Amino acid sequence: MSRIVIIGGSDAGISAALRAREIDPSCEILVVTADAYPNFSICGLPFYLSGEIADWRTLAHRTLADLESEGIQLLLNHRAEAVDPDRKLVRVVGGTGTRDLNYDKLVIGTGAESVKPDIPGMDLPGVFLLRWMDDCFAVNDYLSASQRRSAIIVGGGYIGMEMADALTLRGLAVTVVEFFDTVLTTFDDVLGREVAAELHRHGVNVVTGTAIEAIRRVDEGQRISGSAGFDLRADMVLVSVGAKPCVDLAVNAGISTGFKGAIQVNSRMQTNLSDIYAAGDCVVTRHRLIHDDVYLPLGTTAHKQGRVAGENAADGDREYAGSLGTQAVKIFDLVAARTGFRDDEAAGAGFDPFTDDFETWDHKVYYPGAQKLRIRMTGDRRTGRLLGAQILGGKGSEVSKRVDICATALFHEMKMEELADLDLSYTPPLSSPWDPVQMAVQAWMRNAR
Amino acid sequence: MSRIVIIGGSDAGISAALRAREIDPSCEILVVTADAYPNFSICGLPFYLSGEIADWRTLAHRTLADLESEGIQLLLNHRAEAVDPDRKLVRVVGGTGTRDLNYDKLVIGTGAESVKPDIPGMDLPGVFLLRWMDDCFAVNDYLSASQRRSAIIVGGGYIGMEMADALTLRGLAVTVVEFFDTVLTTFDDVLGREVAAELHRHGVNVVTGTAIEAIRRVDEGQRISGSAGFDLRADMVLVSVGAKPCVDLAVNAGISTGFKGAIQVNSRMQTNLSDIYAAGDCVVTRHRLIHDDVYLPLGTTAHKQGRVAGENAADGDREYAGSLGTQAVKIFDLVAARTGFRDDEAAGAGFDPFTDDFETWDHKVYYPGAQKLRIRMTGDRRTGRLLGAQILGGKGSEVSKRVDICATALFHEMKMEELADLDLSYTPPLSSPWDPVQMAVQAWMRNAR
Repeated sequence: MSRIVIIGGSDAGISAALRAREIDPSCEILVVTADAYPNFSICGLPFYLSGEIADWRTLAHRTLADLESEGIQLLLNHRAEAVDPDRKLVRVVGGTGTRDLNYDKLVIGTGAESVKPDIPGMDLPGVFLLRWMDDCFAVNDYLSASQRRSAIIVGGGYIGMEMADALTLRGLAVTVVEFFDTVLTTFDDVLGREVAAELHRHGVNVVTGTAIEAIRRVDEGQRISGSAGFDLRADMVLVSVGAKPCVDLAVNAGISTGFKGAIQVNSRMQTNLSDIYAAGDCVVTRHRLIHDDVYLPLGTTAHKQGRVAGENAADGDREYAGSLGTQAVKIFDLVAARTGFRDDEAAGAGFDPFTDDFETWDHKVYYPGAQKLRIRMTGDRRTGRLLGAQILGGKGSEVSKRVDICATALFHEMKMEELADLDLSYTPPLSSPWDPVQMAVQAWMRNAR
Repeated sequence: MSRIVIIGGSDAGISAALRAREIDPSCEILVVTADAYPNFSICGLPFYLSGEIADWRTLAHRTLADLESEGIQLLLNHRAEAVDPDRKLVRVVGGTGTRDLNYDKLVIGTGAESVKPDIPGMDLPGVFLLRWMDDCFAVNDYLSASQRRSAIIVGGGYIGMEMADALTLRGLAVTVVEFFDTVLTTFDDVLGREVAAELHRHGVNVVTGTAIEAIRRVDEGQRISGSAGFDLRADMVLVSVGAKPCVDLAVNAGISTGFKGAIQVNSRMQTNLSDIYAAGDCVVTRHRLIHDDVYLPLGTTAHKQGRVAGENAADGDREYAGSLGTQAVKIFDLVAARTGFRDDEAAGAGFDPFTDDFETWDHKVYYPGAQKLRIRMTGDRRTGRLLGAQILGGKGSEVSKRVDICATALFHEMKMEELADLDLSYTPPLSSPWDPVQMAVQAWMRNAR
């Protein structure tokens, strides 16, 4: 009986375990996790910290019992310290000490860690990163401890935006400090500014174009200073300025790395060492539009890559189809979603992009409750190919699944004019005879000439 | 300067006119319409009759002035009586009498009419069909006239369901009478029964398995009798038992018809007569899954076919890509949407179908407001191809655009396992790391073996 050892119990690791079990009901599967929370939805942490989720246990995609009933063994609170690829051993530390686990196939899903800026004060009490369950508990304990009335969030990305929403809902006065000129810089500036306006509408103070330089402890709180004279005190500081792959274990074992230092894998999620696979936030991601590697740590991708790694580790044969960078985020009453490339990214990849900005209603405006959608379609002038889409609209206007129509079209390298051929659903309370995505496509075709 | 005459001012005709104008800014475009309401959203009639839309004028996709500003001439309240394909003339009747219009290219968009069952009493006052604006005004006037407290709707299809919702909202006691064993028979029975339960929850009386035999006038109302002793009185009766193509004009001109008597067109929307195109509810529809003609009168299809006809009439070159029968309907708090084939339809078309019934939440259940989705995926056992999808869920759970992901996948003849490769968007308030559609696909793959 072959033995698959999986290092890491988050999205990639558990997806690998579940798929390996489906493919091979007889193999032994052991997942080594550094904490006691395997298969937790860490994307849900902001909604626990906001108070919207009463019990953190509901964040588990599956319980330990669920996993064990699938015949997946778990070694909790054990850290993998070293891999010996020649002897096919993983050295783990935890519980009663150190021991070596033998494997036939190894899947590395060590994930990413929050980027920790190199400024004074990052280790002060009241200054937090947010990635794992333990981070979440630390923030929650701190906020529950006594009068916490204000927070500074450093970084206006996805987590920063969701935490601005969450901490406002929890009753804190929130300031977001962002290095660039607007927030949510994975979207075009004009959309980022609409998101900033939404933050303002909900009482969030947004400071852009500001680099953080130091955090100091003052009277039970923190004081942050930065560029352009920025100087503000708050009861807590959350720093969310990105993620980087956790690769030390892999590198020390002789595994090669690639783009942004992430573990290099092929389409079968194999590393350069035989019988060792890797998946999720610790690996490079094949981008489907450019057929080249990028670094795009996302839960959706980790699930898909983990599934591929698990299938191959169980002697299946499956390739990862590639990412389009499809993402969605809810910020107060807005939803922003994107797939594929923005104009600048497309130009950087050698396309001849044109981006059209189109505004319409999510459904026939005569029916009550219509909401504005802003759709930015990017296509290639030379070939007429769709390259990307960004949509911003109100919650309830099917923004995210409209972007998914575009993602499915991108997957097939559709031309803009072909999108107008798609037979999409319509009823006046939910859409128009031409879906807003198709109206945006038609506008692109008119304007791109 | 070439002259394009278009007969019919609804979805197909106006789409043809607008596209012809885009393609050829110089041509003359004349649209002949039988009523005074060109380019109205007749799909919106139930929402006017419900009282949700205060002003019927808002049902116009575009105003007359909008259309005229595009250089589209309109001849309202004129009925096309005959086409002479040899002399390239259309005889129209209206206004001051009869006259002949010459054309270089002709587009026929005469639409469909409601099927009128051959039973006594169909012409009684208080008995209505519902298709055009005049039908709508007649129903509205009747309901506004005096105490109208009850309605019987004959036919449990899309219009019947929307009108059950609408008239309930307007305060009437509604009974739906359906010939088959459940309502919304374009969906699988199990979903139709869920829709019937939704109707019951909102106080609608649902009578199935009953054929209507006669309508009689009784004390300011109507009494309907039917099979199995059905006998019920109501203040009004709405009969919505389907649509059939309006083809007399075309047939008399020598134009060939095909499936269900609809006008036969090729992929360029050409009829058998040169320089005569046809589009919309009066023509056959090419089904993309079987590469053969069906009859599927839908607004979305009429827009697309009209656009193709208009482009070709203006000397462009475009083919209609085919329909997948994608449809959505909101019934009280439920949305039902479908694309492609059901199991029985797929079997009839020679596939080896398997349909899996899958239930999950529209988003991570830990986040408030999660709603159940019921997803029925149909695929081909032999090839693993997706053949169709039906989704039922609460309003606000992105049912219709999730079906559109499937419609886009079907357009590309994707295999089930490939749908799991799609890079779809995720954030806990809106989806799961595997979108519910992908979870349903994975369940199909497990169960179809």
